[in-house]
Amino acid sequence: MTLTHATPATATHLTDAGLLTPVRAGTRVEAATSDLAWVQAMLDAEAALARAQAKVGTLPASAAEVITRVARADRLDVRALALAARETANPVVGLVQAFTEVVAAEDPEAAEYVHRGSTSQDVLDTGTMLVARRTLDLILADLRRTADALTALATAHRRTPAVARTLALHAVPTTFGLRAAGWRQLVLDAEERVARVQRNLPASLGGAAGTLAGYLEYAALAEGGTLADPDGYVTRLVDAYAGETGLARPALPWHALRTPVADLAAALAFATGALGKIAVDVQALARTEVGEVTEPAASGRGASSAMPHKRNPVLATLVRSAALQVPALSTALAQCLVTEDERSAGVWHAEWPLLRDCLRLTGGAAQTAAELVEGLKVRPDRMRSNLDMTDSQVVSERLVAHLAPTLGKAPAKALLTRATQEAQTTGQPLATVLARMAEVPRSLVDRLVTLCDPTDYTGAAAVLVEQALRR
Amino acid sequence: MTLTHATPATATHLTDAGLLTPVRAGTRVEAATSDLAWVQAMLDAEAALARAQAKVGTLPASAAEVITRVARADRLDVRALALAARETANPVVGLVQAFTEVVAAEDPEAAEYVHRGSTSQDVLDTGTMLVARRTLDLILADLRRTADALTALATAHRRTPAVARTLALHAVPTTFGLRAAGWRQLVLDAEERVARVQRNLPASLGGAAGTLAGYLEYAALAEGGTLADPDGYVTRLVDAYAGETGLARPALPWHALRTPVADLAAALAFATGALGKIAVDVQALARTEVGEVTEPAASGRGASSAMPHKRNPVLATLVRSAALQVPALSTALAQCLVTEDERSAGVWHAEWPLLRDCLRLTGGAAQTAAELVEGLKVRPDRMRSNLDMTDSQVVSERLVAHLAPTLGKAPAKALLTRATQEAQTTGQPLATVLARMAEVPRSLVDRLVTLCDPTDYTGAAAVLVEQALRR
Amino acid sequence: MTLTHATPATATHLTDAGLLTPVRAGTRVEAATSDLAWVQAMLDAEAALARAQAKVGTLPASAAEVITRVARADRLDVRALALAARETANPVVGLVQAFTEVVAAEDPEAAEYVHRGSTSQDVLDTGTMLVARRTLDLILADLRRTADALTALATAHRRTPAVARTLALHAVPTTFGLRAAGWRQLVLDAEERVARVQRNLPASLGGAAGTLAGYLEYAALAEGGTLADPDGYVTRLVDAYAGETGLARPALPWHALRTPVADLAAALAFATGALGKIAVDVQALARTEVGEVTEPAASGRGASSAMPHKRNPVLATLVRSAALQVPALSTALAQCLVTEDERSAGVWHAEWPLLRDCLRLTGGAAQTAAELVEGLKVRPDRMRSNLDMTDSQVVSERLVAHLAPTLGKAPAKALLTRATQEAQTTGQPLATVLARMAEVPRSLVDRLVTLCDPTDYTGAAAVLVEQALRR
Amino acid sequence: MTLTHATPATATHLTDAGLLTPVRAGTRVEAATSDLAWVQAMLDAEAALARAQAKVGTLPASAAEVITRVARADRLDVRALALAARETANPVVGLVQAFTEVVAAEDPEAAEYVHRGSTSQDVLDTGTMLVARRTLDLILADLRRTADALTALATAHRRTPAVARTLALHAVPTTFGLRAAGWRQLVLDAEERVARVQRNLPASLGGAAGTLAGYLEYAALAEGGTLADPDGYVTRLVDAYAGETGLARPALPWHALRTPVADLAAALAFATGALGKIAVDVQALARTEVGEVTEPAASGRGASSAMPHKRNPVLATLVRSAALQVPALSTALAQCLVTEDERSAGVWHAEWPLLRDCLRLTGGAAQTAAELVEGLKVRPDRMRSNLDMTDSQVVSERLVAHLAPTLGKAPAKALLTRATQEAQTTGQPLATVLARMAEVPRSLVDRLVTLCDPTDYTGAAAVLVEQALRR
Repeated sequence: MTLTHATPATATHLTDAGLLTPVRAGTRVEAATSDLAWVQAMLDAEAALARAQAKVGTLPASAAEVITRVARADRLDVRALALAARETANPVVGLVQAFTEVVAAEDPEAAEYVHRGSTSQDVLDTGTMLVARRTLDLILADLRRTADALTALATAHRRTPAVARTLALHAVPTTFGLRAAGWRQLVLDAEERVARVQRNLPASLGGAAGTLAGYLEYAALAEGGTLADPDGYVTRLVDAYAGETGLARPALPWHALRTPVADLAAALAFATGALGKIAVDVQALARTEVGEVTEPAASGRGASSAMPHKRNPVLATLVRSAALQVPALSTALAQCLVTEDERSAGVWHAEWPLLRDCLRLTGGAAQTAAELVEGLKVRPDRMRSNLDMTDSQVVSERLVAHLAPTLGKAPAKALLTRATQEAQTTGQPLATVLARMAEVPRSLVDRLVTLCDPTDYTGAAAVLVEQALRR
Repeated sequence: MTLTHATPATATHLTDAGLLTPVRAGTRVEAATSDLAWVQAMLDAEAALARAQAKVGTLPASAAEVITRVARADRLDVRALALAARETANPVVGLVQAFTEVVAAEDPEAAEYVHRGSTSQDVLDTGTMLVARRTLDLILADLRRTADALTALATAHRRTPAVARTLALHAVPTTFGLRAAGWRQLVLDAEERVARVQRNLPASLGGAAGTLAGYLEYAALAEGGTLADPDGYVTRLVDAYAGETGLARPALPWHALRTPVADLAAALAFATGALGKIAVDVQALARTEVGEVTEPAASGRGASSAMPHKRNPVLATLVRSAALQVPALSTALAQCLVTEDERSAGVWHAEWPLLRDCLRLTGGAAQTAAELVEGLKVRPDRMRSNLDMTDSQVVSERLVAHLAPTLGKAPAKALLTRATQEAQTTGQPLATVLARMAEVPRSLVDRLVTLCDPTDYTGAAAVLVEQALRR
Repeated sequence: MTLTHATPATATHLTDAGLLTPVRAGTRVEAATSDLAWVQAMLDAEAALARAQAKVGTLPASAAEVITRVARADRLDVRALALAARETANPVVGLVQAFTEVVAAEDPEAAEYVHRGSTSQDVLDTGTMLVARRTLDLILADLRRTADALTALATAHRRTPAVARTLALHAVPTTFGLRAAGWRQLVLDAEERVARVQRNLPASLGGAAGTLAGYLEYAALAEGGTLADPDGYVTRLVDAYAGETGLARPALPWHALRTPVADLAAALAFATGALGKIAVDVQALARTEVGEVTEPAASGRGASSAMPHKRNPVLATLVRSAALQVPALSTALAQCLVTEDERSAGVWHAEWPLLRDCLRLTGGAAQTAAELVEGLKVRPDRMRSNLDMTDSQVVSERLVAHLAPTLGKAPAKALLTRATQEAQTTGQPLATVLARMAEVPRSLVDRLVTLCDPTDYTGAAAVLVEQALRR
Repeated sequence: MTLTHATPATATHLTDAGLLTPVRAGTRVEAATSDLAWVQAMLDAEAALARAQAKVGTLPASAAEVITRVARADRLDVRALALAARETANPVVGLVQAFTEVVAAEDPEAAEYVHRGSTSQDVLDTGTMLVARRTLDLILADLRRTADALTALATAHRRTPAVARTLALHAVPTTFGLRAAGWRQLVLDAEERVARVQRNLPASLGGAAGTLAGYLEYAALAEGGTLADPDGYVTRLVDAYAGETGLARPALPWHALRTPVADLAAALAFATGALGKIAVDVQALARTEVGEVTEPAASGRGASSAMPHKRNPVLATLVRSAALQVPALSTALAQCLVTEDERSAGVWHAEWPLLRDCLRLTGGAAQTAAELVEGLKVRPDRMRSNLDMTDSQVVSERLVAHLAPTLGKAPAKALLTRATQEAQTTGQPLATVLARMAEVPRSLVDRLVTLCDPTDYTGAAAVLVEQALRR
């Protein structure tokens, strides 16, 4: 099997063209996390290694230049590499062999310097970090778009009355802006967590088992057998490699210290969770009986195969589908911290597809959420009519406050419990019921109309929005 | 965007060519669970529906015949369908549109009968069950191969002495055959669970929301406006559809009753867990210091990119990598039982990629495990030398039994604790230490050589193997 | 530390009195899965072992009788046993020591026979299976109660019109009975899966590492040094032990073959998932704007600490809280199949609390769900008014069927898309809009009133209910 | 049922005395996370609220003083509160009722001010954050102890040669100190993540549904009906409450924005994962055949119920048992980000036991790991003899480096592959085999003894340790 001449991909190679994952089909993160992107990132790692070794004097600069120039994924056969990976349990052995051939075709001497002193895990881990960094750029941009759209919604609706719901029932009045500000808060939290992880993604450089021995041995041979300052060389090599990859400098070789992967997993699970919260809220508000928001209309979007009257909330649906998957994948990644020896026989290998799926599901969710929020249609009229549904019962808490000084806290609450039950049974407004009750002081009865106006009881909603938007 | 003329897949479409999942790259299950396979299965569902409706008189037989004939996935553009699915949150709306065009090109009248009275979920769920059934055939065959190889190992080694290990330490003697019989037991358990689920995979037929109303309406129109026996029609239609798909008859439409998916998830998690147990045992036994088994040798397999002396246990590694992923994916599927309404906005959608990954990881693990076990090289010499490492301390339990009648249970155990500590400190054989102890009766001292022979203390290992192999 | 004289439990021992888990606080399963219940079950295992060994002639019957008589958990100090377990990583070492003292106080000779030839895992695993069997009895009874209540609901409401919802929106008409029949189906599925697992829960008998060597050695000594028929003895002993425990006979010692635990985990996750589906549906239907069902009223139940007008759906809330936890716990248990050696150093130990929590959360959910469903208040009036909300748009699918023969499938659907959009925009009934459209044939216009009546388009709902109730 | 007079806890209340979770039985975190501790923390929240309201002029200072003074958990009946929580789906409704009685017994007027304007979630969430903060103090101290012990190990053994293992096999030489430095790195990463989360744990103050309306209403009434500066009041109240609790100031009410809980879950999963890595490495190194480390000896610790010769690695076992559980629990918590409305009907409720278990398992693991690492016995002699097992094959990578300049990279690797295979087959040292090979230059043969000395090929191990210890 040749690994270098790409056989044209055929339909049977379409093990996954996105058919079952519409949340990310065709999105930018899908391309950024494809197998091709991974091969490119691993070649970028090989090229960065060669440049770093050239910089510290272990390789001729010309070899590094050739290696860098031909480090292009389209010269390799991705499918063939995938198949070859079954023989060695990782795709790097085949990649190095194939890439060496590609370099040799250009410059046989340079080929000798490919992957010098290195090991599969340095290349795969560095490649993974490069893919992650590039993907997180896309995700951060979409989180930013989402947050910006939410800023606009929160600002516009900071005083738009709506009912707050707890345990599925009308609770007290709030404003739609406060809800949007809450969503924004979560998106900013996600942005913060993702950005923090991105800043710290490290290059991987350890050699066969984390001692850098292979790198040092070649360096010593290049200097005639002995390194003048081996400790200094280590520092310079790692610095140069981190610099060439643009990744953070690792504190130690991390083949078996999987902090970067666990951190990524946690941040991505957080981000989809945050977006998932928005999705389920949108769905609750979009229910036919509620109708407080609708998804952005686009020609044909949301069509049903059977029911022409429907405009399904498809964007929220897609976001939620991602939010249901990423935490589970993320757990499996967190468990990969528990990895035996200097390189595990299986735990490391489990990380790869899990992390890729976390990245592309989160990225798909972020792009979809941005689209959802930017086009969300808000219906203040429906919010108002829903708020009026229960004829002021949503301010029962307020009335307790007004009766407590006279009646005592517990009797006041008991009275309102009785009054709201009567209102529910009879269908009369709460104010009417209360006005008839002997325990309610006259002074209060006169103010019942105002006190029972739900739009007069939104508390600190508007100011909370204003404070939150300063973040 | 046209959905029917397949654009040639290009490298950039290779969102997943298996590069990060060598456990299933190129395996038969990978092909059986590709997007193309899914499209084919959904077309098979459409064709089965047409034939079933023809059988019960709702469609012309000729239309069903045309629909069946052209129901070929290679006529559609899988990638375009995937992209279109973002608009409707599922791939069936586009599929129906594209397939209708394909049928219309052949026979415009027949095209009117495509997807008649149906809904996306009937087609996708039935298609998924067809994919699952086909994949489980492959998985069951590989589990069978694995079990057969283990039968041979258990038989051959039912009396081969080896040390049993508990909490990482040498415990008492056992036989390698008993270990192999245990692995086989798990594989048979997996086979049983997978086969049971496979037998019950149901066709999905509910119409827009589980009432079959659309199917009935078209049937009534075909019979001139009224169905003579609507209840009987329902029974006949469901029977015919189940018959044409070859799937089980559903007790109720199951759009929101996700037993089949949860059952699949549980069985697949079990199967990878069972195979994962074999993998971690093989790895423990293959450790350099232990060396009791080695993986099948094949040219180049197990090579390291850095270390020429290594022959990595790659098959066990791949199996274990799957076993670390499937349970997490399976949980997410189990959670999808909690799905609101007659069709969830997101929960259903999360199932698709999760289930596909469960299927193909389990299938990859099964094929890999079969290869592993069929070629496993067993080293009775290393088993024996490991057993001898601790100079009979592994029979300390036996010696307690022999001393207990004289000394009492607790003092006997205390004495052996003392004796084994002395043996560990001094490096002397346990028999030597015991022979010197006053509390040990002379009658016992004479038999210490026999009693301390670990190969004489394998208990019921051989008979347990024989009994277990009868299953 | 003495392990036998129970120090009075104090408040500080209340590491978990149920405060954070109201779904199971005070339920019968909570008691059945307490630490005390576990100690009792382990003592039951010790007693069963003694009786079994007596039966096959290895122990004096009198010793077995004493051991059985004093095998009472209230003689031991559960907290002290828990603390002692840190020294040996399992609670059995301390339990055996303490129980031996208890027996010795009664009959010193009998004490010699406690735990004879046995090992911690035999006692703990058998005890766990006993706890599980007893708990599953309770769970099965509550699933039965739930199913019975659902049978009544499905029967009573098999023709009660209601709207079916898909992707959060009104889809087509259905009946409430069909929804209830679906819930019942899931509960029966759960019952079937739990009962199947319960029937197969095995006793655990393997000795130190699964070879039964210790049991055989003591048996041989009891018969003067040699067993006449060791293979027969093995069979008789395992049969007797299974018989005395009332558990299934194990095919092989299963210290490291964790099928029973994985099966339990899967069945329990399924059961909570099934109940969780009911819970989220009840919550969706109980929303203030929907109001189609309410939870059973009981004095004070559902009260809010702040809002007197609320009657929170607390039972559904509790059930759902369990359904959100058990699948995750269950995964961790499924992963425990991957357990190295003849007994793992940690994997076995992780099972215990996970399994206990699965049992008691599922049990709590089942008891709570029974209460919920038995008292569920159904509001056909609200179902009807919700159905009428969209002025017949929920039958748009039906109208396509009637127009398709004339206009063709695609144009018919396009026309209805247009018509429903106009109805939504103008607020006019769909029938009115359609009647104005030129493409709609006169013959159809005359029947629009009937065709647009949602209660006339419930399809096969009633007959599906009847068929389903036969299960 | 009275909630205030604690009935003496009895054995039947011991739903969980730690029997099944030895990793935390009797540890300090167990007490810090008991139900009693939770009740105390919720009372602390009530008291802090009263003091904060007094500070901003809404309550008499004397009432806040009484409330603070009697806010003692031992005055309440924890079990009764747990049982009462089933009626309202949370323990706060009962707690407030009971605590009001306790306050009333002291000062009836003060009782009127208990829980003023508040809601269950403010009290429970703030209480949870207080429990978390207190528990994290303990966890951080134990992580610190662990890190300190690892610093000592890494320093002492930075040059102690040992074999590095990858994919279960001997790879290249390393030093034990580098392994210990890696463990320390993970522990420091855990410490950093836990501490960061701890610093940001916020107080919860939102009122019935996040608008603070109840608090404002009572404040207005206290000021005669209207608040002069409601916006300023909000700021002052939240500041005062955060100050009194000692928790961080929340940016927004977070009833439905669950960042703090998700962050806790992620940090705790990380911490157990880090400790779990140490545990599995210790177990791999403690295997009888490997024997490079042993657990700290303590009288009786590690005893087996059957086998007197064993000293089980129980501490590592307990740590690993926690590491197998926490990630799964943590996932379920991450999923709780997806919580509908202003307060979910079930999602919030699922958090409580999951978070408690994460806290106490992590805390147990940290305390146990500290004990493990502080007492770990290192065996340099066994490390050396294991390193010598393969007669220099572990330096095959080095020899490739020395042959590559002459032979070329690929032929050099092929030659070593051949040579190591011959060494494995014949049992001869690699140097001997190589010395016979024609391709090996004489100049190299002369240096083979030095080059093949594994202790001469530990690369940068020592300097990496030194660099890492600077963190």
